[in-house]
Amino acid sequence: MEENNANLKSWIEVKPDSDFPIQNLPFGVFSHNGQTAVGVAIGDKVVHLGEAYEAGLISDVTKSNVFNEKSLNAFLSLGKTEWRNTRKKVSELLREDNAQLRDNAELREKCILAQSDVTMQMPVEVGNFVDFYSSIEHATNIGSMFRPNNPLMPNWKHLPVGYNGRPSSVVVSGTPVVRPKGQTKADDAELPTFGPSKLLDIELEMGFITGLGKPLSESISTAEALDYVFGMVLLNDWSARDIQKWEYVPLGPFLGKSFATSISPWVVTMDALEPFRVAGPKQEPAVLPHLQCEGDGNYDIHLEAHIQTEKMDASLCMTKTNFKAMYWNVPQQLAHIASNGTNIEAGDVYGSGTVSGTTPDSLGSMLELCWRGTRPLKLPSGEERKFLLDGDEVTLKGWCQGDGYRVGFGECCGKILPAK
Amino acid sequence: MEENNANLKSWIEVKPDSDFPIQNLPFGVFSHNGQTAVGVAIGDKVVHLGEAYEAGLISDVTKSNVFNEKSLNAFLSLGKTEWRNTRKKVSELLREDNAQLRDNAELREKCILAQSDVTMQMPVEVGNFVDFYSSIEHATNIGSMFRPNNPLMPNWKHLPVGYNGRPSSVVVSGTPVVRPKGQTKADDAELPTFGPSKLLDIELEMGFITGLGKPLSESISTAEALDYVFGMVLLNDWSARDIQKWEYVPLGPFLGKSFATSISPWVVTMDALEPFRVAGPKQEPAVLPHLQCEGDGNYDIHLEAHIQTEKMDASLCMTKTNFKAMYWNVPQQLAHIASNGTNIEAGDVYGSGTVSGTTPDSLGSMLELCWRGTRPLKLPSGEERKFLLDGDEVTLKGWCQGDGYRVGFGECCGKILPAK
Repeated sequence: MEENNANLKSWIEVKPDSDFPIQNLPFGVFSHNGQTAVGVAIGDKVVHLGEAYEAGLISDVTKSNVFNEKSLNAFLSLGKTEWRNTRKKVSELLREDNAQLRDNAELREKCILAQSDVTMQMPVEVGNFVDFYSSIEHATNIGSMFRPNNPLMPNWKHLPVGYNGRPSSVVVSGTPVVRPKGQTKADDAELPTFGPSKLLDIELEMGFITGLGKPLSESISTAEALDYVFGMVLLNDWSARDIQKWEYVPLGPFLGKSFATSISPWVVTMDALEPFRVAGPKQEPAVLPHLQCEGDGNYDIHLEAHIQTEKMDASLCMTKTNFKAMYWNVPQQLAHIASNGTNIEAGDVYGSGTVSGTTPDSLGSMLELCWRGTRPLKLPSGEERKFLLDGDEVTLKGWCQGDGYRVGFGECCGKILPAK
Repeated sequence: MEENNANLKSWIEVKPDSDFPIQNLPFGVFSHNGQTAVGVAIGDKVVHLGEAYEAGLISDVTKSNVFNEKSLNAFLSLGKTEWRNTRKKVSELLREDNAQLRDNAELREKCILAQSDVTMQMPVEVGNFVDFYSSIEHATNIGSMFRPNNPLMPNWKHLPVGYNGRPSSVVVSGTPVVRPKGQTKADDAELPTFGPSKLLDIELEMGFITGLGKPLSESISTAEALDYVFGMVLLNDWSARDIQKWEYVPLGPFLGKSFATSISPWVVTMDALEPFRVAGPKQEPAVLPHLQCEGDGNYDIHLEAHIQTEKMDASLCMTKTNFKAMYWNVPQQLAHIASNGTNIEAGDVYGSGTVSGTTPDSLGSMLELCWRGTRPLKLPSGEERKFLLDGDEVTLKGWCQGDGYRVGFGECCGKILPAK
């Protein structure tokens, strides 16, 4: 589609290393002067879609103004045609040769805001939150720590293993993360104790957000799946490893995860990610027919996690990895979820699972990076970290590299505050 | 409180075996003539609270009319004072000696509807759905089937084990349950297959619904817990045992549960249940201080599950059990959930876990009643059942027995339709 053309330029200045060139145009929700609305990011600016709609600049894209809302949900539930029309219209409006908004100072003042003047909010009201476990490197690493002779469970290569998370504690980037308290038991202790988690960790993930819903009892094929997916975000599935270890048998992770899950505020559309589709790893044994996927199912997304402690002047990149190596892809995850007939809603968030690569510097959690605390991270401040301490701030970054531009996700950050 | 007085009588006729005498007054959401509103059940009638508020009959209980809404959430989020005031006012309005509504035919026509003329809807918008595993009999039964030498996991007596479920597939009683498809693997098969579940089961549970929310990072003590809980419902956590068995290691139940969870439409308030509090079983070893609970933490609620196949003229009671034997109680479950600082929202649903007794006819699932299919249920139609077949209908019932009256929950039913 024309909106992805590498040669497009906007009359709004976009720096070469910006995550938000005209080829991206991600959607988010911001507040400004006490009002909340839907916006699109371009360079270091936000297009106020509520005002743009009122001004007649994009009023033919949807039947009513769904952009002066507190979440993207109303817009998302319209479906793919409306998502595409809106991105196309915003793209046209921002092109360097389009004078309509460019040369109208009064309208520009209303419709174009500085990102530094707005506060980003949760982009969606989260109905369901699911977390997968779809990196074979991560699953094998974790499995080998706990079951050295049997790291991958028998089901792992046959279905994208996942579990339901807690929707209400999915929070937007920037929300502080208060260290959770919980019940833990040391291996050599007879009884558990209750107190602040000592093994607080990150999980570097991507999340996809469904736009179009479907009712109970129907399924979704892998071929149809992307019609239901609006876009993707960075996702940090904060994890208290000590709480998780004690609680998770036999019903899975619960309070070790439910205290906070952070997502980046700008939802990058699947349309903007289209040029970055790549083939995923070969699946052997072959998966069952309903999970088979034609064409390139993966996305080439560079991912990083950075840490900054209170003694550091600048952040340090802890890990660099890539989303393209995931064993299970987005269409397969959604087809699996829907295979039992469960309903899908606009605003559901589906985490990929921790994205880990094959080398020691490409792992997506501190549990793996520091290998259960046996190889601590050395920081430029002279400090060491095995897990997160109070005051530490973690920032995830992610982007697709185009020819001379990036389609990026911005940042997903959170600072650890002491337990209450 | 006066509303629970066993001697109260209403000018609306209530049969002796009704679940909804004036001592109960549960809240629900109904639709009637294309409109949806909040109502209170009495006998076989519904009090239309939206109309009653408009008519000035209950207008001092809340600041605005939160009863012409599609869910209880707006009312619930007001808090316990408003819940109590409303039930108190409705109780006064319905007492036999109160002429205000009794003798006003025009108002009665607007405010009092026959239950047979309305359609019950989901009482709440479900934000979070959690399912516990809090019957020691059930956990021991299931554990002994899969791990004969080690039925209870080491954590079980130290915390109320639970997991997050899927909020969007919590449905109101009466919603048909389409047999889920899914991936399963026979013990003697090398590879899994995909198709309709063959081991479809019920789980007879109670669910509590939170009314008052709390933000991230704060906890709730067992002493405060009931201030956050609005009431309880019957809950059937439909389970596809074959899907569950193959998928659940290591991250817990997922698609084996997420196709449907049914709840009864009338939410019985914790205030109405107050006279039926009883002591729970002694917890040994003693639980950690934050989970200790003063006073009577359990509720004496009789529970039954009935089955009717298409060949049966009437339903058969499969099991009779009681909620009072649960090892972990509601305040402990909520205190545990909130102990890591997660947020609580109005409309969250928390399932108790399957309620099983100690005898073979008091078990809360067909997996236990028929002991993995080894002792099939004999039906009066000459049929047998080990698990549910298409066309079978299951109805849960529950009530507290007062002196000459019942505080009941109505019914929670669902009929199995063939897989699509």
